[in-house]
Amino acid sequence: MFEVAELGHRISKQEYNKEVPVLRAELLSIQQEMKNAGFPVIILISGVDGGGKGRVINLLNEWMDPRYIRTYAFGAETEEERERPSYWRYWMALPPKGHTGIYVGSWYSDPIAKRVRGKIDNADLDAELIHIKKLEKELVDDGALIIKCWLHLSEDGQRKRLKSLEKNPETRWRVTRQDKKHLKLYEKFSSIAERTLRETSTGEAPWLIVEGTDNRYSSLTVGKHILGRIRKHLEHTRLLNEQRAQMSNLPMPVRDEMSVLGSLELSQALEKKTYNQELEKYQGKLNKLSRAAYARKISSLLVFEGWDAGGKGGAIRRLVHAMDARHYRVIPVAAPTDEENAHHYLWRFWRHIPRGGMVTIYDRSWYGRVLVERIEGFARDDEWMRAYSEINDFEEELTDHGIVLMKYWLHISQEEQLARFKEREKIAYKKYKITEEDYRNRERWDDYETSVNDMVTRTSTEYAPWHLVESNDKRFARVKVLKTYCEALEKRLDNEK
Amino acid sequence: MFEVAELGHRISKQEYNKEVPVLRAELLSIQQEMKNAGFPVIILISGVDGGGKGRVINLLNEWMDPRYIRTYAFGAETEEERERPSYWRYWMALPPKGHTGIYVGSWYSDPIAKRVRGKIDNADLDAELIHIKKLEKELVDDGALIIKCWLHLSEDGQRKRLKSLEKNPETRWRVTRQDKKHLKLYEKFSSIAERTLRETSTGEAPWLIVEGTDNRYSSLTVGKHILGRIRKHLEHTRLLNEQRAQMSNLPMPVRDEMSVLGSLELSQALEKKTYNQELEKYQGKLNKLSRAAYARKISSLLVFEGWDAGGKGGAIRRLVHAMDARHYRVIPVAAPTDEENAHHYLWRFWRHIPRGGMVTIYDRSWYGRVLVERIEGFARDDEWMRAYSEINDFEEELTDHGIVLMKYWLHISQEEQLARFKEREKIAYKKYKITEEDYRNRERWDDYETSVNDMVTRTSTEYAPWHLVESNDKRFARVKVLKTYCEALEKRLDNEK
Repeated sequence: MFEVAELGHRISKQEYNKEVPVLRAELLSIQQEMKNAGFPVIILISGVDGGGKGRVINLLNEWMDPRYIRTYAFGAETEEERERPSYWRYWMALPPKGHTGIYVGSWYSDPIAKRVRGKIDNADLDAELIHIKKLEKELVDDGALIIKCWLHLSEDGQRKRLKSLEKNPETRWRVTRQDKKHLKLYEKFSSIAERTLRETSTGEAPWLIVEGTDNRYSSLTVGKHILGRIRKHLEHTRLLNEQRAQMSNLPMPVRDEMSVLGSLELSQALEKKTYNQELEKYQGKLNKLSRAAYARKISSLLVFEGWDAGGKGGAIRRLVHAMDARHYRVIPVAAPTDEENAHHYLWRFWRHIPRGGMVTIYDRSWYGRVLVERIEGFARDDEWMRAYSEINDFEEELTDHGIVLMKYWLHISQEEQLARFKEREKIAYKKYKITEEDYRNRERWDDYETSVNDMVTRTSTEYAPWHLVESNDKRFARVKVLKTYCEALEKRLDNEK
Repeated sequence: MFEVAELGHRISKQEYNKEVPVLRAELLSIQQEMKNAGFPVIILISGVDGGGKGRVINLLNEWMDPRYIRTYAFGAETEEERERPSYWRYWMALPPKGHTGIYVGSWYSDPIAKRVRGKIDNADLDAELIHIKKLEKELVDDGALIIKCWLHLSEDGQRKRLKSLEKNPETRWRVTRQDKKHLKLYEKFSSIAERTLRETSTGEAPWLIVEGTDNRYSSLTVGKHILGRIRKHLEHTRLLNEQRAQMSNLPMPVRDEMSVLGSLELSQALEKKTYNQELEKYQGKLNKLSRAAYARKISSLLVFEGWDAGGKGGAIRRLVHAMDARHYRVIPVAAPTDEENAHHYLWRFWRHIPRGGMVTIYDRSWYGRVLVERIEGFARDDEWMRAYSEINDFEEELTDHGIVLMKYWLHISQEEQLARFKEREKIAYKKYKITEEDYRNRERWDDYETSVNDMVTRTSTEYAPWHLVESNDKRFARVKVLKTYCEALEKRLDNEK
């Protein structure tokens, strides 16, 4: 695979000086076009030590308008990063639409380094690469352009480079003991890199392998490749948008009488006296459990979805009553801000992933993608359809990191909802909760029910099952929420021991 | 001062249960009003150990709509926080307009704790308190409501509390060795707290001292106080806005012929040959210096202001050419995002304060407040007038933290600007840089010149002087920028030794 990059590609100074001004002008002008095209560009510059990564990156920053570029070098994880799933820092560093992110030391660095040092085996490496491919596919599906460049140097080339650096007193300091150690591992590194590139050279995000011996050659090759890819992606995006404008979404299927929601026993209820006892019991329990979880840096993430007036707010208040306000945060999910809108729809949820020991409670969540966005047509069919697996992957990352993830659907009947709307309109400080939109949503009850059934079926996983809460009786619902969360925390704390 | 909070205030369970529902309804409904009133509420809950801070905070979260509240507990600084000025974390935690932030362990905790432990003396404490007062005044000037509550417990009350906790096996664990140590320091702590409260009980942000023996009493008192303050602030804000709507901004003063800008020698220029030598020399120098600064975690913050077509972009490119793209970031300052708009105007600049060793380059900056916002009337007279000292304070925090701060004004003549506009319109990849707005701005040249002169005069401080760069000759300007930054870095690195 790397043979092609050991042929001695070079470019003369004269040719370089002739080509660069043209390339630069084209890159600058295409950056302008990009601003309005509405997609981000993600450029990975990877490769062997001494392959000239730093030099290529510096040149790209010089050639292009640096105001729309940001360069990231991921090193060892910081305290804040370690306390969150490992991909959190990559998500946080994704460029908004119209901008370019350049990455040296990307999501590829860790798996390769770990495999070279023998900390993981080939099977682990392959699992990591599948993870990477999922991430890249998800970003490409969302419209992003991913450009991956690998700067190669032969073993001999690497040796020569170190020797020449060492000869010059001005550059001798740049040769470290680590460089020499890496040279000894060359063959191993090379074969692992080859496996990685082979596995992750996908149709949507292929690798470009570039010979790194001659800086002029490698910079110009990378620069031209970027220009070509952006140009093609602009065209591709334009055509795709035209095509999409002509397509309409699928009609909503008719309501299926036999369904997950339909089989819930909504008549379940608690007497006031039993309720008070149970409430006290589980709030007391939760108080202790959440204190223990905090001490052991176990985070929780609770998702509340449900019908309007289903009792989300009340259930959340009963929960947090038992918790320390310094350790939880309630995130009301409303319309995204413009910064959020410029990113992948999951970005705004990644943002609030709690640090170790903390709790985030989402009042509505990423499931909006397959509920309101599906029903109102805010998301295209392909978008909400692939969202199920995107969401499953996202939740797997959370739970793999050890986060306790609880997903609640608060279910009430259509009649109960109407009664609650009427009741709310009577109480001064609850009146603001009822708007015309609530009545409009009511009219689409069947569509919502279909979407909820689909959602529950497709996103109830072993690691993140849905908890369907029969909520016609508020007391029953609140106790069920408290109880299930207590059980999950208890189980998690036991596993830890 | 604390005597008033040692009188044995209590409230009966009956009265409490009668009052709470009323208070809660009023708090919820006033939160609704607040959402549209456009100001943030900052609530500090401080006081002695065992004064019931945690309980009051939890109750506030329960009584109010938790979706518009966020509670922060500041503990020891994290890695990311330590690498930035100490107030960075407080700025980042400020609530947006319409929201409430509750803080336990605020900007008061560190100075008090340090003074009690004898790490600083009274003069240092007073200096810290002045710093705090400046911050609070700045936030209040910007429209924020600051509510500060101090929960007090007498020495005897504290002792009794610890004893009763220890007696009960269920609560014994809550009494730590630290609690006992703190009790011994009671008198010292109390006198330092008194000094702090006295110094920082200002007209715009007074302290409320609350007796903390009885939880019902303290929670209800704090809750009612908050309600009252918000209510008054809503009214105050309404009246203020009405008043302001009737007031127009001051007219721009006429241009003063004798001025800082007027005295610049714009004819200074460099021959191409000299330029190439100097450029190479200073880029080489900067390369080494910035590498050394990175290694020693010395950050830089560079601000570029200047006339349209003054050459900011070109100067920035020559600078970054000598730097490692992984270590700098260029921030183009355009219209604020909606998240930025919901905060104090300096918030969006605090956001990008670099970590240790990194460089942030602002292409335009917070000086927009006293330039375009002043001239176009986007800021009221009182806003841009007080901005000078707000900016000076901000910059002092940066330089006090050891950040190298460089401020450049790239100055050209009116004729030179016109020539550059015309030239740009001819070059394909530069054409996008010229818009109608540029021509409109040109018409206000005199107003800009007046504002720039005022800005330079009022914000050239010992710790952050302006560098006025004669830029009619691009070569001269670029070398001057490089040279001055090199000198500043050199000086800073020498001081470090």
